[in-house]
Amino acid sequence: MSLDETATKPHERLAALMQDDMGRVNELIRERMASEHAPRIPEVTAHLVEAGGKRLRPLLTLASAHLCGYEGPYHVHLAATVEFIHTATLLHDDVVDESLKRRGRPTANLLWDNKSSVLVGDYLFARAFQLMTETGNLRVLRILSDAAATIAEGEVLQLTAAQNLRTTEATYLQVVRGKTAALFSAATEVGGVIAGRPEDEVRALFDYGDALGISFQIVDDLLDYWGGTATGKNVGDDFRERKLTLPLIKAVARADAEERAFWSRVIEKGDQRDGDLDHALHLLNRHGALEATRREALDWARRAKAAMGSLPRSDLRDLLVDLSDYVVARVA
Amino acid sequence: MSLDETATKPHERLAALMQDDMGRVNELIRERMASEHAPRIPEVTAHLVEAGGKRLRPLLTLASAHLCGYEGPYHVHLAATVEFIHTATLLHDDVVDESLKRRGRPTANLLWDNKSSVLVGDYLFARAFQLMTETGNLRVLRILSDAAATIAEGEVLQLTAAQNLRTTEATYLQVVRGKTAALFSAATEVGGVIAGRPEDEVRALFDYGDALGISFQIVDDLLDYWGGTATGKNVGDDFRERKLTLPLIKAVARADAEERAFWSRVIEKGDQRDGDLDHALHLLNRHGALEATRREALDWARRAKAAMGSLPRSDLRDLLVDLSDYVVARVA
Repeated sequence: MSLDETATKPHERLAALMQDDMGRVNELIRERMASEHAPRIPEVTAHLVEAGGKRLRPLLTLASAHLCGYEGPYHVHLAATVEFIHTATLLHDDVVDESLKRRGRPTANLLWDNKSSVLVGDYLFARAFQLMTETGNLRVLRILSDAAATIAEGEVLQLTAAQNLRTTEATYLQVVRGKTAALFSAATEVGGVIAGRPEDEVRALFDYGDALGISFQIVDDLLDYWGGTATGKNVGDDFRERKLTLPLIKAVARADAEERAFWSRVIEKGDQRDGDLDHALHLLNRHGALEATRREALDWARRAKAAMGSLPRSDLRDLLVDLSDYVVARVA
Repeated sequence: MSLDETATKPHERLAALMQDDMGRVNELIRERMASEHAPRIPEVTAHLVEAGGKRLRPLLTLASAHLCGYEGPYHVHLAATVEFIHTATLLHDDVVDESLKRRGRPTANLLWDNKSSVLVGDYLFARAFQLMTETGNLRVLRILSDAAATIAEGEVLQLTAAQNLRTTEATYLQVVRGKTAALFSAATEVGGVIAGRPEDEVRALFDYGDALGISFQIVDDLLDYWGGTATGKNVGDDFRERKLTLPLIKAVARADAEERAFWSRVIEKGDQRDGDLDHALHLLNRHGALEATRREALDWARRAKAAMGSLPRSDLRDLLVDLSDYVVARVA
């Protein structure tokens, strides 16, 4: 299918361009999440896989492989691998965060239970490793198993850092690289590797995914204080869950003694009262923390764009550049 | 080090024979479970890894590789891989079973929390895949990622089968193959594969691990009704957790209407009262279910021994034969 000119959002244009391949990816996902012996597995995964997420990560792998002139067939396996890893981490996040909603539906662990979420997540991780092994490419195996370790490490780091007021912006960045950017950068990097492109291009694809993932997560954390109903996020979720994200880290760094006592009470001690969220928003604005966070998101989007400059010109490259703008469009 | 004649138990003799390699495995485990950025990871894993488990699975990999004349170095990576996968599944089991004790210590999720158990388990899975990727051997990657999928599938199947009185012995066997035997058989099979042995020997190593793992699990399930304090198991844990294991499946198959109602109440409905465990033990004995379970464990140990017959004679082979006797010695 050719580029659908009526679809204006870059990820929709990307999805339209990659429609045939994405059909193969979806077919492979359905085939591999089946389990002859344990019917609960597709029940749990279908809930997530069919829920209509943007499939951004597998699209990045397909786009990256095409951009590099790869003609297949293993980009389909790698895209499915990336989506399986993503889905597995969502299932495990649902357990650990006791979050109530995911993509607007009840989370798997409310419909089923923690046991199912943990074990079906493990099943998807294993399926991901089977899929990537089928490519026979040891370098993509290294990249993706390194990414899986970095993701878990970032999530564990978040456990100890999230409610600690001494958490620095450097630690926040490390958490974000783990929980979000590692899979974005692996998704784009493997496209170049499977295509056998030179090192500088592979590096550029990594850098693009890394910067795109970081800006994506910073925007997400910013919208938690800035969003309206249109963004699909409830303002203050992170605040209520006592998650120290970039806006708060910036506000804490500029806090006087009284403000510090406030942050300590609501985040470290978790003693939250009526009006605390409003006061937090007031402090965030007073210190320009939201604006500073916004500028950082834009800066990472700029870096993503710059990385694309090392790759040969093509329509697909322009589309990935547009995508990095789109990720920050809600706060631009 | 030579065989320590004073250590009479086969797994102790095996540990003594493999002492040097096992030292390398332990070093690799300590090195790879470290995390520069997330100190909670070694805190959680040290708890399990240092707890003095028998290290039976990595010992099987080392023994299998040596038996096949392999001179290294990747049997050490594979043994560490197998132990990481095992430790990760224990961490995830602790979350899902809400079990109170593991190896005589409080479980990780009482000392820390569910979040840490899930995410540190994920980290160990990822570390396992990194380690096996370093071998550069695609066939061992297939075997171990298949095993990981089979383990998760078996655990999910157990979720739905454990409290369902219609669960058959065939389903029980499938669960046991998943949750226990898959890692045993992968542990022995990869030793032969990395050594480049012919297919019939690789198959024999797989069959040995498969049968050993099944007899190991059947004995474990039997001791839950037969054990004393010496076995380190509390009689009735599975009963209280409403797990339909082989002894119960056999008793249910021979139950009259009144007995069936009893099993339905205590297992399916979970309505357990004083004296129910004693009554369950009475029914298990009346129908010879414990004796029949014991005979099955012995039969699987016999099959493990028979599989070794296809391999060239050696002291190590004899030791693995002794090990299959030892696994069932507590019920022989």
